[in-house]
Amino acid sequence: MDVAHLMQDMGRRARAAARVLARADTASKNRALIAIAAALRSAAPSLIEANQADLAAARTSGADAAFVDRLTLDARAVEEMAQGVEQVASLDDPIGHITDLAQRPSGIRVGRMRVPLGVIGIIYESRPDVTADASALCLKSGNAVILRGGSEAVRSNQAIAECVQAGLRSAGLPSDAVQLVGTTDRAAVGELLRLREFVDIIIPRGGKSLIARIIAESQIPMIKHLDGVCHVYIDAAADPDKAIRIADNAKTQRYGTCNTMETLLIDEAIAARVLPPLAAIYQGKGVELRGDQAARALVPGMGSATEADWGTEYLAPILSVRVVTGIDEAMDHIARHGSAHTDAIVTEDPARAERFLREVDSSSVMVNASTRFADGFEYGLGAEIGISTDKLHARGPVGLEGLTSQKFVVLGDGQVRS
Amino acid sequence: MDVAHLMQDMGRRARAAARVLARADTASKNRALIAIAAALRSAAPSLIEANQADLAAARTSGADAAFVDRLTLDARAVEEMAQGVEQVASLDDPIGHITDLAQRPSGIRVGRMRVPLGVIGIIYESRPDVTADASALCLKSGNAVILRGGSEAVRSNQAIAECVQAGLRSAGLPSDAVQLVGTTDRAAVGELLRLREFVDIIIPRGGKSLIARIIAESQIPMIKHLDGVCHVYIDAAADPDKAIRIADNAKTQRYGTCNTMETLLIDEAIAARVLPPLAAIYQGKGVELRGDQAARALVPGMGSATEADWGTEYLAPILSVRVVTGIDEAMDHIARHGSAHTDAIVTEDPARAERFLREVDSSSVMVNASTRFADGFEYGLGAEIGISTDKLHARGPVGLEGLTSQKFVVLGDGQVRS
Repeated sequence: MDVAHLMQDMGRRARAAARVLARADTASKNRALIAIAAALRSAAPSLIEANQADLAAARTSGADAAFVDRLTLDARAVEEMAQGVEQVASLDDPIGHITDLAQRPSGIRVGRMRVPLGVIGIIYESRPDVTADASALCLKSGNAVILRGGSEAVRSNQAIAECVQAGLRSAGLPSDAVQLVGTTDRAAVGELLRLREFVDIIIPRGGKSLIARIIAESQIPMIKHLDGVCHVYIDAAADPDKAIRIADNAKTQRYGTCNTMETLLIDEAIAARVLPPLAAIYQGKGVELRGDQAARALVPGMGSATEADWGTEYLAPILSVRVVTGIDEAMDHIARHGSAHTDAIVTEDPARAERFLREVDSSSVMVNASTRFADGFEYGLGAEIGISTDKLHARGPVGLEGLTSQKFVVLGDGQVRS
Repeated sequence: MDVAHLMQDMGRRARAAARVLARADTASKNRALIAIAAALRSAAPSLIEANQADLAAARTSGADAAFVDRLTLDARAVEEMAQGVEQVASLDDPIGHITDLAQRPSGIRVGRMRVPLGVIGIIYESRPDVTADASALCLKSGNAVILRGGSEAVRSNQAIAECVQAGLRSAGLPSDAVQLVGTTDRAAVGELLRLREFVDIIIPRGGKSLIARIIAESQIPMIKHLDGVCHVYIDAAADPDKAIRIADNAKTQRYGTCNTMETLLIDEAIAARVLPPLAAIYQGKGVELRGDQAARALVPGMGSATEADWGTEYLAPILSVRVVTGIDEAMDHIARHGSAHTDAIVTEDPARAERFLREVDSSSVMVNASTRFADGFEYGLGAEIGISTDKLHARGPVGLEGLTSQKFVVLGDGQVRS
């Protein structure tokens, strides 16, 4: 079968499985999840063996250490995958829940029922644990899923997908509910992005070049974020200790995550007090600083920020710094250069906190907290399938609810419209 | 200015106005709405005069009576527009509302704040009252809007838009918040659909060919429905009186609306009892029936349905009829031929009602009620900007809430992530 037909066939089977899964009860879905966790544990030796083959091939092709690290599946990682699947079993089932049921003057009762989206396509890179995580979240939310992992992880992913399908079958659910694209042919991604008839939403997870390609090619709506150019704005009324603690953490707790601060904005009224000690902390941790003229005047040796810096997601120990005249200039900067991901203000002034919360148009807006909190687990969603910086449907960290939709239900007793 | 630059300029101005509107308080927005209603009333003579010019041009170009009817704006229509705008003023303001605020183990409080989408593009056909309605809904929900009405209504639309902008100005809000595309150049629509940087969502309202063109061309997400192939399924356990009343109303109360039934499905166990009297009602009202073999065996003179009939939205006094073996065949038929708009079951069997509600994947699913109820006003949304058959974001009739999004807000006291 050629790739186009292969993907069409997967789409058709996913659509059929989705209808079964949409009506599966919570107990069946949880039985499948528990069985998947058990299958992962008992298959641990063969999962690790498959992963060793992937790792050997990656090393031969010259993959760097960070790549090999993300690809590696050891006994502990398998156990964590199994526990992750069990944790999804413990989450509330969102499906079938009816809210806002109210009687209308006509006598009908109108409410909304939460239902699955249908078929989800997930395109990801080297991390094989996504295969188990994403399968579990889609299953719990009643969706079928087509998984397309990185070609370097294909043996690991296939071994994990076999455990998932075994778990589905043991609970009497269709194994087509979770299908892994087995071919490493890159054309499969393009075909998947054209399966409008069979796939309801695409969730891409990976580096910027992957996401950009998918945005350009997809004919299917997406839950995605391209960039995380996150800001911390230290207001004139900030508590200096909180400001330093938050700005330090937002940049240095992890450098490579999308919710890491990339640009620090600081009010000119407090800059002289806060910026020098903060810069000393950054410099002690090896963070390169690139500032505007006013920032450089306060911190000897600070490099110069170019216009391009303001829009750059470094994902590295580099930080751009700008001194602003106040909250308006800070919010203008964020509106112009930000990526609508996560932005924070540090202030003790409630009116300015309120303005920032209301007016900054980002998926997460924070007062006196580190941008690093923008995460499904930290937010209490129980899980995270991705983060969206779009405004439609889910916005910010996306958990089970983001994989569902609400339809209207109308309960009548023979009512007709007059 | 050429059309491309004209639309770019409108987009840029809309984006700037949207930032102002997003932070406008409820009182200002309501003041603008009340002023718009007053402006419409006092401008009634000139609105009607502008409309007369549109009508004269339409008649000259040979427009049919239905078209002229939709285009006509008389004194009563102007008063209804003004009342419609006042009614939007009386609706609750959804913006700024924070829900689900809860403390997390880290000490941060996490909630969701309802915010405007930003800039909305509305593309519609001949009805000039949409200009006022859509402006009012976008304004109340804090969004800027770019309106592109039918070229036949351009004089009427411009006169209405002037009232809207006067109302905005009198309340101190930017008149760029509501902009009407003044050119009748059709290329303007194509340009509008490419303004990804400035327009967040497109809402097309009109006939199928308009919607199909917009779906094919738009680079911006849409709230839309293409078809309304709605079904009523009369189950074996239906109350025959309710079944007849509902099936009659769903087809004949209005023929040209998207929530009108186009296909009747009926269980073979009850068909002999219900179909003949129902067919007599339809035939008495001049409804042409096109049935499968089993239906035709019960109703002498019924025409024959072809495969194409099952997927057709007639918008006319024509109904396709199929006798099925039960709820599974009915739901299979709906999944295969329906348009995910509105489908109803008539049954006194609670288990089958529940299955239908849960398993039929349409934007509205009903038990013992006419499909004609699928409407924002009937559902209590207070207004309706359109109907969506998509699964992402808003689904079914879309009111003010569908023009908004929710972002995460995080309230901390200096918390950092460990």
